[in-house]
Amino acid sequence: MLQPGATIGILGGGQLGRMMAIAAAGYGLKACVYCPDAGSPAFEVAASHIQAAWDDEAALADFCARVDVITYEFENIPAATVAFLMARKPLAPGLKALETSQDRLAEKTFVASLGVGVAPFARVDGVADLEAALEKLGRPAILKTRRFGYDGKGQVRINDGDSAAAAFAAIGQAPAILEGFVPFDREISVISARSATGEFAAFDVCENVHRHHILDVTTVPAAVPGPLRQKAVAAARAIADALEYVGVLTVEMFVLADGETLLVNETAPRVHNSGHWTIEGARTSQFQQHVRAVCGWPLGDTSRLGRATMTNLIGDDIDAWRAILAEPGASLHLYGKAEARPGRKMGHVTRILPE
Amino acid sequence: MLQPGATIGILGGGQLGRMMAIAAAGYGLKACVYCPDAGSPAFEVAASHIQAAWDDEAALADFCARVDVITYEFENIPAATVAFLMARKPLAPGLKALETSQDRLAEKTFVASLGVGVAPFARVDGVADLEAALEKLGRPAILKTRRFGYDGKGQVRINDGDSAAAAFAAIGQAPAILEGFVPFDREISVISARSATGEFAAFDVCENVHRHHILDVTTVPAAVPGPLRQKAVAAARAIADALEYVGVLTVEMFVLADGETLLVNETAPRVHNSGHWTIEGARTSQFQQHVRAVCGWPLGDTSRLGRATMTNLIGDDIDAWRAILAEPGASLHLYGKAEARPGRKMGHVTRILPE
Repeated sequence: MLQPGATIGILGGGQLGRMMAIAAAGYGLKACVYCPDAGSPAFEVAASHIQAAWDDEAALADFCARVDVITYEFENIPAATVAFLMARKPLAPGLKALETSQDRLAEKTFVASLGVGVAPFARVDGVADLEAALEKLGRPAILKTRRFGYDGKGQVRINDGDSAAAAFAAIGQAPAILEGFVPFDREISVISARSATGEFAAFDVCENVHRHHILDVTTVPAAVPGPLRQKAVAAARAIADALEYVGVLTVEMFVLADGETLLVNETAPRVHNSGHWTIEGARTSQFQQHVRAVCGWPLGDTSRLGRATMTNLIGDDIDAWRAILAEPGASLHLYGKAEARPGRKMGHVTRILPE
Repeated sequence: MLQPGATIGILGGGQLGRMMAIAAAGYGLKACVYCPDAGSPAFEVAASHIQAAWDDEAALADFCARVDVITYEFENIPAATVAFLMARKPLAPGLKALETSQDRLAEKTFVASLGVGVAPFARVDGVADLEAALEKLGRPAILKTRRFGYDGKGQVRINDGDSAAAAFAAIGQAPAILEGFVPFDREISVISARSATGEFAAFDVCENVHRHHILDVTTVPAAVPGPLRQKAVAAARAIADALEYVGVLTVEMFVLADGETLLVNETAPRVHNSGHWTIEGARTSQFQQHVRAVCGWPLGDTSRLGRATMTNLIGDDIDAWRAILAEPGASLHLYGKAEARPGRKMGHVTRILPE
């Protein structure tokens, strides 16, 4: 159990690391942020930071010397970096969660092994695999790289008549999986936390709408029946327990048109964009909850404080900042990014409405 | 009107500056904190900081070069420092508010000139003044230094039989005022904000209980009748307007036993301990509100989200941190101070209850 005044090391300096560092500060902790990118948003709110490459062992050793525990804002940390760090300081969430989430094939196989539904999938290491998989799963289907995909990157949809070879080329001929197309009705996510003692707490189920493969709006509670919500939380808990998970875990799921079937789409071993509403909308935010779990502290109260919507401000959306500031009840969050590039998450706005 | 990405300069690096810097970061602003004290709590959450003396003109010039607007977490900034800074960058709240609040005599005279009640007072520059004032105001009475008093420091109570000379010696023979003893029923405070355009917004009136001259518990709303609350807010507004105030203003008042009479005890041109409950208890926190006003942005929604209590964690009170973390609905705030000295504000806990 960490004491106030301890230092939490955060790998990755984007907005998730930034909001995590702010939550840590609220609890009297220091944050040290490690990120290769100059001007990382999280640097600005951390007691210290290290700007260095993932393979810079001197910098990594310095980082380890400064921190009491290590966590991360994104799961694609190189394996060698993880191994170097874990030999020196506790890392949470742990290796099992990281390895599982870094590889879509491992992730799907693992989730399915728990008896939790996933979209039909097949391993694809080449065009022949892909043709066989298309035969089996039908079209349309989605070809996804096993590693390093996010926000729709590293994936391509294969429709009737599309060439398997062209699709495989489009994802850079990387090791991949093919996923059967799922005619889903809604996308939901469960943001939950598990502590080292096995304590588990979930926020209310979120419903997510994407635009151009990027999260656009999250609404809480999700408009799905109570039993389905319970099933979704139970699936998240089964995953967290099986991973001996410590920290905040995000599980994205599809709800099929029958209103009963849940399929896990993706797990993320971290705080998540669809959980940003918890800053104003829950007694404990996902960032505070993550800090609590990682420090070995009791988990916080996940009670919701109203109906919540969280809308991302992507690229030029940030131009509305003045209007949002003037809107009663709207909570504006900006991430301090200098340049509003298309597709870049610049901030978000949360609105809490009475039940 | 400042743009997101601008830098707000904060004079003073304690917990108020720390929470102000965190609020600024939430709006995508950078904070630069100036404070003479090594290891200042606000340094840890600011994009940059300068640790230098108040009369270090090279450091002050560097500070001015880094920031777009200057504000402060405490009012006792030396006049020469203020003059140096104001010649280079906008300062909010402005000089009138600073000068008034730095001198208890000027403050009382100013407030009384607005037709707002204050305790009876008299100027004391020596023992002869003090004896005359005691004759006029009676005993008990409170002798207070005109400058640099806070948390009960720089003041002494004079009871029947006490020596005027001894009392004047006890406050270091500094220029002072004598205040007539006020048999008050309750202490309340109004945290309000005014923008450069004259926009004004107040949070609900707070009721404060002190222990050893330090704020112990704030409860909101104050248990005083509606008309009295309106009168308190009107007094705060009159003061803010007369000062052409920009930022969050705190006005502490006594409610006399008749339940009708309000006397202003003190004004503070800044965010205030009795406003910490707004972080969880209002749509906009006092820190966000202050940042908005100082940046020339529209003021935020001050709606309250429930009944609130805020309890300070002073000195060893911080030892309860684990129990507070485990208490459902309690929001723990720690300020990152290394050493829990007696009387030192280490953190606070806010509890929001249904109306």
